[in-house]
Amino acid sequence: MNLNSKPAKKKNTEPVALAEIMAPVARDLKQVEIYLLKWADGTSPVMKKMVQAAFRNPGKLIRPGILLLTAAHLSYKGQKKIAAAAAIEAIHTASLIHDDIIDGSPFRRGKKTLAVAYGEKFGLLLGDFFFIKSIATSVTGISPVITEHLVRVTEKMIEGEAEELARMFDFNLEEEMYWRIIELKTASLFEATCLIAAELAGCPKTEKKALSEYGKNLGLAFQVVDDLIDITSSPKETGKPGFSDLREGRLTLPFILARDLADPRVKIRLKNLVQAKKHNRASLNELIALLENTGALKLTIKKAEKLIDKSKKSIMNLKDSPYRRSLIDMADFVLMRRY
Amino acid sequence: MNLNSKPAKKKNTEPVALAEIMAPVARDLKQVEIYLLKWADGTSPVMKKMVQAAFRNPGKLIRPGILLLTAAHLSYKGQKKIAAAAAIEAIHTASLIHDDIIDGSPFRRGKKTLAVAYGEKFGLLLGDFFFIKSIATSVTGISPVITEHLVRVTEKMIEGEAEELARMFDFNLEEEMYWRIIELKTASLFEATCLIAAELAGCPKTEKKALSEYGKNLGLAFQVVDDLIDITSSPKETGKPGFSDLREGRLTLPFILARDLADPRVKIRLKNLVQAKKHNRASLNELIALLENTGALKLTIKKAEKLIDKSKKSIMNLKDSPYRRSLIDMADFVLMRRY
Repeated sequence: MNLNSKPAKKKNTEPVALAEIMAPVARDLKQVEIYLLKWADGTSPVMKKMVQAAFRNPGKLIRPGILLLTAAHLSYKGQKKIAAAAAIEAIHTASLIHDDIIDGSPFRRGKKTLAVAYGEKFGLLLGDFFFIKSIATSVTGISPVITEHLVRVTEKMIEGEAEELARMFDFNLEEEMYWRIIELKTASLFEATCLIAAELAGCPKTEKKALSEYGKNLGLAFQVVDDLIDITSSPKETGKPGFSDLREGRLTLPFILARDLADPRVKIRLKNLVQAKKHNRASLNELIALLENTGALKLTIKKAEKLIDKSKKSIMNLKDSPYRRSLIDMADFVLMRRY
Repeated sequence: MNLNSKPAKKKNTEPVALAEIMAPVARDLKQVEIYLLKWADGTSPVMKKMVQAAFRNPGKLIRPGILLLTAAHLSYKGQKKIAAAAAIEAIHTASLIHDDIIDGSPFRRGKKTLAVAYGEKFGLLLGDFFFIKSIATSVTGISPVITEHLVRVTEKMIEGEAEELARMFDFNLEEEMYWRIIELKTASLFEATCLIAAELAGCPKTEKKALSEYGKNLGLAFQVVDDLIDITSSPKETGKPGFSDLREGRLTLPFILARDLADPRVKIRLKNLVQAKKHNRASLNELIALLENTGALKLTIKKAEKLIDKSKKSIMNLKDSPYRRSLIDMADFVLMRRY
C-alpha cells in the first residue's frame, strides 16, 4: 500500500506481480474461468448473456487463485478443486452484484456494473442465480462437507452486509463493530477458501488451522486496504469513483480511527465533513488532510501491515513449496495493491 | 373460482375451508411456524426484526401444509418434515420478497411488502438470507438428497423469474412460453414439495411419480388462478392492487388466450388496451368485457379446472387416508379461492 508516493513499508521492495504469483496454478485458473462460463449453457437467452458478461472479463481471481495454490501446496491432485474455486468466485461475484445494487454503485473495475448494464431487476436475479448455482455445483459435484462450508460462508456474508447496512451513516460506529462486519462480509470468504482447499486435500487439523488463520487475516487486511484505496487511489486506478464508501455512508477504519484520535474540536469538524450531504474537491482534501494529521491513515496502514504479517506468519511453519511462496507473495500483493 | 358471482363449476359445491383441510396436520404446521421464527435467533438486530416480521403473520402456508399432508399420508413419522416444510416456505418467501422488489409491488396480503416496510436494500438481503438459510437447514438437518431438491427448485424458480422478466410488456408472448415460465417459477416448488415428502418417507417410485404429478399440476393451476384473481377479485379481497400483472407488464393466460381468440380488429384494440401507459376504470372495464366476450376468461377457468382434475386424478389410485382426502380438498380449494 503506497500512500502519496511514500512507501508504506520500510523496505523498498516491489510486490511480486499477480500474474507471477498465480503462475504455478495458471492452467487450473484458466479451467475455472471456462467452468464458470459454462454456467451460461442451457439457461435462457438473457441469463446466458449476463453470465457471459459477468465471467468473460473476470476480476483478479484472487480467491480461486488462493484456493488452487493452497490445494496444490497440500498436493491435492483431484479435479474437484476447479468446481470449488468456481463456486467461491461465483459467491464473491453474487455478493458484489447485490452489493452494487444496495449501494447504487454505477461502476466497478472501470465498467458499468451489471445492475446498471442490465437493469437492477436482472442484476438481482443474476446474484440469486450465482449464489444458488455455487451451492448446486457443490451438491452435485463436490461433497456435503464443502457444501456446508459454502452455505455457512454465504450466510455470514449476508449477515455482514445486513449489519453494515444497519450502521450506514452512523458516525459512532465502534471499531470493534467495524472488525466484526468486515470479518463477516469479507474475511469469512477468504477463510472458507483456504478451509475448503484443506478439506479437499484432507490435511491434518494443525495445518487446517494455520491455513484458515492465513485466510482470515488476509481477508481482514484485504478489506482494510480496500477502504484505504477508496480514499487514496485515483478513480482512474480503481475504475470506480473515489470516496464511494463515504458517499454511500460506510464509516471505514480510517474515519473511525481519526474520530477516536482527534481532539474534540477536530472531531466535530470531522463529523460535519463526513456527514455532509455533498462533497467537493475542497472538502475531500480537507478530509484527507484530517485523516493524515490525526495519524489515522498511518495507523490504518499499520493495522493492515500487522494483519498481513500475522497472515504470513501462520503459514511460515508449513513445509516449503512454490505454492506456499506464492501464498506469501499474495499477502504482500494484497497489502501493496493500489486497485 | 367464482367469476362475477356465477359459479365456475357446474356443481354448486362449496370448497372445504383451508383450516379444515389443514386440520390433520395443524399441530405440525404450528411447529413449522415456530421453527421459522427461530431463525431470528442469533442474527443481528435488524435481521431479527425482519425475520420476525416475515413469519409472525405467515401466509396460508399451503406448501408446508401439502408437504406435511403428503408425509403423513406416507406414514412418515420423523421430525425432518418440520425442517423440510420450513425450508420450502422460506424459499417461497424469499422469492416473494425478491419478486416484490423486481415488480415494485407496494402491497402483499393487505400489508406493505417487506421491501417497502424495511427498504429495498434490507429486503434484498432478507431474500438472500431466506434462500441460503433454507439450504443450510437441509445441509445440517435433513439430507443431501433433500438439499439437492431444494437447490434445483430454487434454480428453476430464478430461471422462471428471469424468463418472465425478459418477456415483460411483450404482447406476442406465446402460450407455450407462458406455461414454461409458470412451470419454472411456481409449479416446480409444488412439485418439489411433494417429492421431498416422498423422499423423506422413502416411498416407491410409482407413488413418487403420482405425487409429483399432483404437485406439478396443482402448481400450474395455482398460478393460473392467481392470474385470474388479479383480474376478477377486488383489491379488498386480495390485499393488493387489482390488475397488478397488467401494470407490471406480465401478459397472463387470459390476455394470451383473448389475443389468440380475437378477430384482427378486436386484437388491435386489445393490444392498445394492454399496452396503454395508464389504465382507468373505463379502460379496465373494457378489458374485462373483452376478456369475457372473446371467451378467454371462460377458457382460462376451464384450463385451471382441467389441471386440478389431472392433479386429483394422479393421486386417486393411492390408498385412502384422511391426509389424501385433504390433498384432494386442497386441489379444490386452490381452484375455488378468491384471494
